[in-house]
Amino acid sequence: MSLLVTGSIGIDTVKTPFGVSKDCLGGSAVYFSMAASFFSPVRFLGAIGADCPFILKKVFKGRHIDLAGLEMRQTSKTFRWAGSYAGAMNEAVTDAVELNVLAENPPIMPDIYKDSKFVFLANTAPILQIKLLDQLNNPKFVAADTMNLWINNALPELKRLLKKIDCLVLNETEARMLSGDHNLITAAAKIEKLGPSVVVIKKGESGSIIRTKKGELFVLPAYPATIVKDPTGAGDSFAGGFMGYLASQNKTDFATLKKAVACGTVIASFTISDFSLKPLTKIKRKNIDMRLNELRKFVKF
Amino acid sequence: MSLLVTGSIGIDTVKTPFGVSKDCLGGSAVYFSMAASFFSPVRFLGAIGADCPFILKKVFKGRHIDLAGLEMRQTSKTFRWAGSYAGAMNEAVTDAVELNVLAENPPIMPDIYKDSKFVFLANTAPILQIKLLDQLNNPKFVAADTMNLWINNALPELKRLLKKIDCLVLNETEARMLSGDHNLITAAAKIEKLGPSVVVIKKGESGSIIRTKKGELFVLPAYPATIVKDPTGAGDSFAGGFMGYLASQNKTDFATLKKAVACGTVIASFTISDFSLKPLTKIKRKNIDMRLNELRKFVKF
Repeated sequence: MSLLVTGSIGIDTVKTPFGVSKDCLGGSAVYFSMAASFFSPVRFLGAIGADCPFILKKVFKGRHIDLAGLEMRQTSKTFRWAGSYAGAMNEAVTDAVELNVLAENPPIMPDIYKDSKFVFLANTAPILQIKLLDQLNNPKFVAADTMNLWINNALPELKRLLKKIDCLVLNETEARMLSGDHNLITAAAKIEKLGPSVVVIKKGESGSIIRTKKGELFVLPAYPATIVKDPTGAGDSFAGGFMGYLASQNKTDFATLKKAVACGTVIASFTISDFSLKPLTKIKRKNIDMRLNELRKFVKF
Repeated sequence: MSLLVTGSIGIDTVKTPFGVSKDCLGGSAVYFSMAASFFSPVRFLGAIGADCPFILKKVFKGRHIDLAGLEMRQTSKTFRWAGSYAGAMNEAVTDAVELNVLAENPPIMPDIYKDSKFVFLANTAPILQIKLLDQLNNPKFVAADTMNLWINNALPELKRLLKKIDCLVLNETEARMLSGDHNLITAAAKIEKLGPSVVVIKKGESGSIIRTKKGELFVLPAYPATIVKDPTGAGDSFAGGFMGYLASQNKTDFATLKKAVACGTVIASFTISDFSLKPLTKIKRKNIDMRLNELRKFVKF
């Protein structure tokens, strides 16, 4: 089933205790698409400036990623992010950010994307997420990401968005902020009251929680990765694995949601093992399936 | 199989966002014994002062907890601890502590305890843990807890202890401190090089990790508790459930260790649901078994 992602394409500079990766390819839509493409074809919607040194067509070669929605703006510059991680690398510190093309109008939805059934709205201003969503005809399952900035500064728009989507994917700090509840299970229940019937809370190295409005609950530890060099893109590739699997099954029942969380968990465990997109360009579907089996064993008692 | 615990009996005053519990019963040996008694008889070794308002014989009534090792010291005072939890209640802030009897000689091991096969040395100075251990004849599986204080101030003694025990139970911060490694999986492997063939790392609301020297690995989220009123004793009752189950099976193979971690996880989820020992006095073995089944479902995909 068709899967659409809207998000950023970035020129990243990342410092971790394992080294520096200067001007490498990043961005939420890029990580998401790479991850999702192991499971499902992807429709890509995003904008770059004339300065972008990456040819996405080459980067995505051999994957079913439709770039009809990639806008190159001759007079604009590409989004840039510089960040660093220290210690346990649980949190990025933003060293510098240039919004550039992200501060302009969002990309225009190609007509051929408008019938998309599975949709992921990567983190951006909720008002833009709403505008993007409103261009679609009749999506079946819409998931969105958000962040502390919007919870603090654009709460009314975020609440409008939440009424329009099926699933919110956010991290534990954001879940606590949005719900006003420290307990992540009751926090998820409170967020569901704001609209989405599914809430996924990402806890980084401590795994994730998924809860549905029916009260169904699934808790999964992270894949116990021993090589963690660059956590950039972990959340977006988690979302890519999650949505990619759902789209591939064309189902969103609880059993499918659980397996989708496991797919996201495993994909993220590869993403963090090296800088930028290196791991995702190297692995095959069989590597993912092997880790899925391992993860199943790791939690079995 | 015989299970011995050595640890503290405390008069606790605990403040959480849910209220205050003044001068209630606490202490590592007390929480451990209550938890372990659901699975196995327990031999209790600890000391109180003449001021102790609790009659442990009454508290433990109906449980197989042998109090031959409970020393009442007429001229001493009982250990007191006052602590508070805020926010997500992940960490206790110690407001006041009076070591009292804990600053004196450790209790004397009754002869009838010396053949104990399963042994838990709750957190105290490593030198005392060694002295207690050296009084035993031929234990089969010895686990110990420790804390940042000893890692910082008594590392040589702690390292001596580690060579004598089979299993170290510690929290994630302590594991990182002791190993000098942020990654908990490789941290566990490094700690195993110091002696213990099994390392259990507790991550509070994010569950736990167990690793053996053979490289076997099990990761389990916490039971997704929605009622958390007082986390005091969670770690010690986790250890009680863990060791109680092992002793009940008289086995320490990996399948048994995994189930034991699950038992500890579930017991801890009850402990935190109300102040002091209230939850553990109310539940029955069947409540534990129900949550074990639920936990198995929560992680299944």
